[in-house]
Amino acid sequence: MIIDKETLSQYESRYRAQLMNSLAGVKQAVLIGTRSADGFNNLAIFNSLIHIGANPPLWGVIFRPDTVKRDTLNNILETGEYTLNFMSTADFEKVHQTSAKYPKEVSEFDACGFTASFQPDFQAPFVQEAVVKVAMKLEQKIDISINNTILIIGSIEHLEIDEERIGTDGFVSPEDLNTLACVGLDAYYETRLISRLSYTKTDQWPTKIG
Amino acid sequence: MIIDKETLSQYESRYRAQLMNSLAGVKQAVLIGTRSADGFNNLAIFNSLIHIGANPPLWGVIFRPDTVKRDTLNNILETGEYTLNFMSTADFEKVHQTSAKYPKEVSEFDACGFTASFQPDFQAPFVQEAVVKVAMKLEQKIDISINNTILIIGSIEHLEIDEERIGTDGFVSPEDLNTLACVGLDAYYETRLISRLSYTKTDQWPTKIG
Repeated sequence: MIIDKETLSQYESRYRAQLMNSLAGVKQAVLIGTRSADGFNNLAIFNSLIHIGANPPLWGVIFRPDTVKRDTLNNILETGEYTLNFMSTADFEKVHQTSAKYPKEVSEFDACGFTASFQPDFQAPFVQEAVVKVAMKLEQKIDISINNTILIIGSIEHLEIDEERIGTDGFVSPEDLNTLACVGLDAYYETRLISRLSYTKTDQWPTKIG
Repeated sequence: MIIDKETLSQYESRYRAQLMNSLAGVKQAVLIGTRSADGFNNLAIFNSLIHIGANPPLWGVIFRPDTVKRDTLNNILETGEYTLNFMSTADFEKVHQTSAKYPKEVSEFDACGFTASFQPDFQAPFVQEAVVKVAMKLEQKIDISINNTILIIGSIEHLEIDEERIGTDGFVSPEDLNTLACVGLDAYYETRLISRLSYTKTDQWPTKIG
C-alpha cells in the first residue's frame, strides 16, 4: 500500500508515532546517566545515538520536545557531562523501565535495579552493569527549529570496554558484545552478523572479510 | 580497558574510524536515491537515519565532510527530493557495492544490480527491489559547525509498504520485513526480536506484549 502525508496526518497520534518510530528501524538502546547540579542521579533510555565524527570522536543524541526525559537534558546542560551505557540484551526489561516517569528525586538506578558507579574527575554516573561505558562531554547544542527538537553533540572523554572485543582493525560487533538494540518505543532486539565486506572498488565485487 | 581521548587521538585514523563507527552500534542500512538536475540517477548507502519527529513525520540523515557521497547531498540540495529505500538482508552485497566511488555519470542502480523505479510527481528514483520505499522532501539543512558535518532533515511525502506488515498499533518490525541493518563501515546484520514491552509505570514492572 502507499501511505501519503495526508493519510499520515490523519492517523491517531500514538499510531502515527509507533509507525514512524518503528519504521526508522533498529538502533542501539543506550542508557544515559546524568547527575543534577544539586546531586540527583538520573538514568534514561535513548534510541537516537548517532555517529557524528571519529576525529575528534563525536556522537549525537536527539531530544524531542514532548519527551519525559527533560531531566537528562537539563542535567547535561547544567553540568556538561553525561555517560552513555551500552547494556546487555538480558537487561532489556530493566532498561525499558527507566522510561517510567519517576520524579526527579527518585534515582532510576535504584528504581530499575542498576548500580551507579563513578570514575575520577567525572561527576556523571555510569551503569556498573553496562557492557560498554562512555564518558561524554557536551560540545554543542543544536536547536532544530522545524519541530523544536534538540541535537546534543558530545565528545568522548574516555570509554571502558573489554579489550578482547576490539578487533585488530578497530571493529567492535554488537553481537559479540551482546548489546541490546531497540526499535520504536517498546521493542527490544538482538543482532546477528551476516558478514563484513571488503572496501568497495568500482571494478570488482566486495568479498567477505573478518 | 579504559581508552581516554588522548589515546583515541593517537590511534591510526582508519582504526579510530572503525572503532568509533562500530561502537555507535547497529542502524538500518538505507539506500538513498537521488536524481541530479541534469538527469543522472544516484544511489548510495547511508547508516545514519534518525527519527526526528512523528507529527509532522520528519527523519534526518547525517552527511560527513569526508564522504564520497557528495553527489547525494548535492542532488538533494538541487532538487529538494530524495528516496529512502529499506533493503532485504539478501541484498547486502549489492547494497555495500553502492559505496564504491563511481563517477557521477555512472548510475549505481545499473552498476550494483538494482532497478530504478519512479512514481508520479516525484523525480527522485526508488529502488524497485526495496522492502519499504519512502519519498522524502527536503525541509531543513543544518550545518554542524564543530566538525563540518551536515544534518539533512526531510518530511515524508509518501511511503510504500506491505500493509500486512503494519501491526494494529502501527508497529513495524525490521525482523518481519527482513530489512538489512549495518554496523560501522562494512558490517551487515539481521535483527531478532527479543520482546515488546508494555508502557512503563513507576509502580509496576513492564509486561511482554505483541
